[in-house]
Amino acid sequence: MRIVDIIDKKKKGYELTREEIDFFISSLVDKTMPDYQASAWLMAVWFQGMTDVETSYLTEAMINSGERIDFGDWTGKIVDKHSTGGVGDKVTITLIPVLAAAGIPIAKLSGKGLGHTGGTIDKLESIPGFSCALSIENLKRQVKDIGVAIGQQTGNLTPADGILYALRDVTATIDAKPLIASSVVSKKIAAGAGNIVLDVKYGSGAFMKTPEDAVELAKIMVNIGKHLNRPITAVVTSMEEPLGRAVGNSVEVIESIEFLKGNIVTGDIAELTYDFATIALMLTGNFVDEQTARDYVKEIILSGKALDKFRELIIAQGGNPAVVDDYGVFKQSKYKLEIPAETSGYVKKIDAYKVAYGCKLLGAGREKKGDPIDYSVGVFLNKKSGEAVQAGDILYTIYANDESKAELCKEYCSDAYEYCTEKPQKEKSIYAVIKPE
Amino acid sequence: MRIVDIIDKKKKGYELTREEIDFFISSLVDKTMPDYQASAWLMAVWFQGMTDVETSYLTEAMINSGERIDFGDWTGKIVDKHSTGGVGDKVTITLIPVLAAAGIPIAKLSGKGLGHTGGTIDKLESIPGFSCALSIENLKRQVKDIGVAIGQQTGNLTPADGILYALRDVTATIDAKPLIASSVVSKKIAAGAGNIVLDVKYGSGAFMKTPEDAVELAKIMVNIGKHLNRPITAVVTSMEEPLGRAVGNSVEVIESIEFLKGNIVTGDIAELTYDFATIALMLTGNFVDEQTARDYVKEIILSGKALDKFRELIIAQGGNPAVVDDYGVFKQSKYKLEIPAETSGYVKKIDAYKVAYGCKLLGAGREKKGDPIDYSVGVFLNKKSGEAVQAGDILYTIYANDESKAELCKEYCSDAYEYCTEKPQKEKSIYAVIKPE
Repeated sequence: MRIVDIIDKKKKGYELTREEIDFFISSLVDKTMPDYQASAWLMAVWFQGMTDVETSYLTEAMINSGERIDFGDWTGKIVDKHSTGGVGDKVTITLIPVLAAAGIPIAKLSGKGLGHTGGTIDKLESIPGFSCALSIENLKRQVKDIGVAIGQQTGNLTPADGILYALRDVTATIDAKPLIASSVVSKKIAAGAGNIVLDVKYGSGAFMKTPEDAVELAKIMVNIGKHLNRPITAVVTSMEEPLGRAVGNSVEVIESIEFLKGNIVTGDIAELTYDFATIALMLTGNFVDEQTARDYVKEIILSGKALDKFRELIIAQGGNPAVVDDYGVFKQSKYKLEIPAETSGYVKKIDAYKVAYGCKLLGAGREKKGDPIDYSVGVFLNKKSGEAVQAGDILYTIYANDESKAELCKEYCSDAYEYCTEKPQKEKSIYAVIKPE
Repeated sequence: MRIVDIIDKKKKGYELTREEIDFFISSLVDKTMPDYQASAWLMAVWFQGMTDVETSYLTEAMINSGERIDFGDWTGKIVDKHSTGGVGDKVTITLIPVLAAAGIPIAKLSGKGLGHTGGTIDKLESIPGFSCALSIENLKRQVKDIGVAIGQQTGNLTPADGILYALRDVTATIDAKPLIASSVVSKKIAAGAGNIVLDVKYGSGAFMKTPEDAVELAKIMVNIGKHLNRPITAVVTSMEEPLGRAVGNSVEVIESIEFLKGNIVTGDIAELTYDFATIALMLTGNFVDEQTARDYVKEIILSGKALDKFRELIIAQGGNPAVVDDYGVFKQSKYKLEIPAETSGYVKKIDAYKVAYGCKLLGAGREKKGDPIDYSVGVFLNKKSGEAVQAGDILYTIYANDESKAELCKEYCSDAYEYCTEKPQKEKSIYAVIKPE
């Protein structure tokens, strides 16, 4: 078998066999294939796509390229929830204590943030002392002890994905759906999840720009799950504007705690958390009726059980649980700028990408791998789309440690707001739910 | 400017600017761009193609990546003829003495053979003592002295092409027309040719499988010439079966000498040599009437002037001119196998690729760069398509130095012949002539 023939076959649009894909991935990992052949293949895949069967082979080959976490008997119970990345997306933080409190064990490996969307690990590590650097053994033990753990992705799991991802990043092949799908699903399965709930985003703040593209990607991932015998439910959601009101690190954790306290009951964060929790409860077979599941989620939150579970998680991972009751425990930013609205009317929309870019300029995100992050900075959107605004009202708030960076951030955020004179139609956050057929 | 953006732009089908292409090529040559980015770009070009303007920029950037041969005042007179590669293609050897004898200076840089088609240099170097290892200074002097020189391509000319070609070879991007076109034309222009005649082959023995593809490639090359102000005429010719009767090295030189002696007056070799010579005479402005030019070519050959010029060329490049009158001066093969026809009828066609492969097995060609070549082996097709054959007639002759290799070669060559019962229609060798509009 020759790599050049595999590239040629894909280039011409033929379906690769399992043997060819296995050979490609093993040659990638053992370095017998030079990177320039891998990148030519990636570009051919960008143009020709892959069938669901090929994508499943690729996913399996990537899973088999490294270690796997094995929860044994627990595998079928374990849930993992993954988002393709969104601005202000703290739904993992709001969701996992709810599920754990509801008796559904959650084991989540997450990445650090890169690009314009923040990483769950960065957000959680803004809690003083909190660390996601768990060994696989400690992660497994913690899941069995308190029902929830959140660790950091390691190079030992799916090393092939790590190599391919780095190549895709510099060869303009990030946005190939079969490559995104196999990358996400291989990591989830290698991390031991028996049930996977995926949040596939579309819109200005996401990799997929249209709902149609997101649905296509969602279907590919659900089909991989079917081929590999791991149930996957994919929820296609809008990322036209930031999720919730907080964008940053500690500001997002604070918003999550507010939700867990029962103080946020409407809006996208509440809507998505309830929906995902309901899906997970039904996926693991504990509930058959949706309304009953949804009522149970509500009870878990209003009873304070979810918040208690979050405190337990913080303590288990070395963090200071006092943050839950006193937000002053978080590192504080030097400046707080409340930006007033200049006109009256309604907020029509808020461009997620521009807000994210403004936050990155403040220091809340990374330009490249390994860059440090300022946990205390961020933006709070006092007004969101659909809300009435009077000139002079506080439109949004900037938390910053540098005045000139705050000014730059203000330019992007003010530019992100669009107004209208009539109250706009509220769009639903969930566009579609894709389940295995 | 970032390479990843240039890849992305090409991937999306946009036209690259001169600055972007120059940056890509200079980053390739100075090694600031990793090969994996170059190969992703090559694959994107395979899918999206390039406009004529982009292809011209690429050609210019490759020319500017290295040294150039400058013939000064002579530039406008100098002719170069290039073939995209064909089995048994000795038309360069038959043509250049004719042109030089007709007063048209020819400077040709050629490559060693690779793959299934032989290199002109290998064929000529089968003449004992003949060497193409001329310095650029000696090449220029020889052209001015005797009107003809044939040298070997050096890495100093168009180094960017050398790097890209090596990458294309291992990433399944050899057959991208703008890449083939810019590779060929950049080498010709860097070698100083003022007028270029290209033989663009199609068929089983060529890179382009259909005449339509060959015409498309021809048009791209002619248009590059127009953009870069160097007149290019491209002749699209069939390579469904080997050119002439000899395939190998010394056997092809012998067939060429037979032509120059006036002993071969019909068939593809005679047809193509007359046509190319006529085109070159008209291109350099010496003739306006095609028939007069053609008559002059005939006179050059029948008078022995072309053969004399070939002797002169052999002497100038260190070869033994006695080969012209005594073919026994060539290194002789140990075995000569005359293969009889098993059936009677007409030869319908001969698969060029199979014959070439058989010859490569004998040792007449290279598997990889640097492999040695056996000059004395090859195949002579006693019967060609359209010719009547009786069972027992000699169909073809194998010249070999190893009996088992001869047996393998025989399998391929016998398989290459196809028969029919009625005399088949003779196809014209020339499919189209593409000139600048």
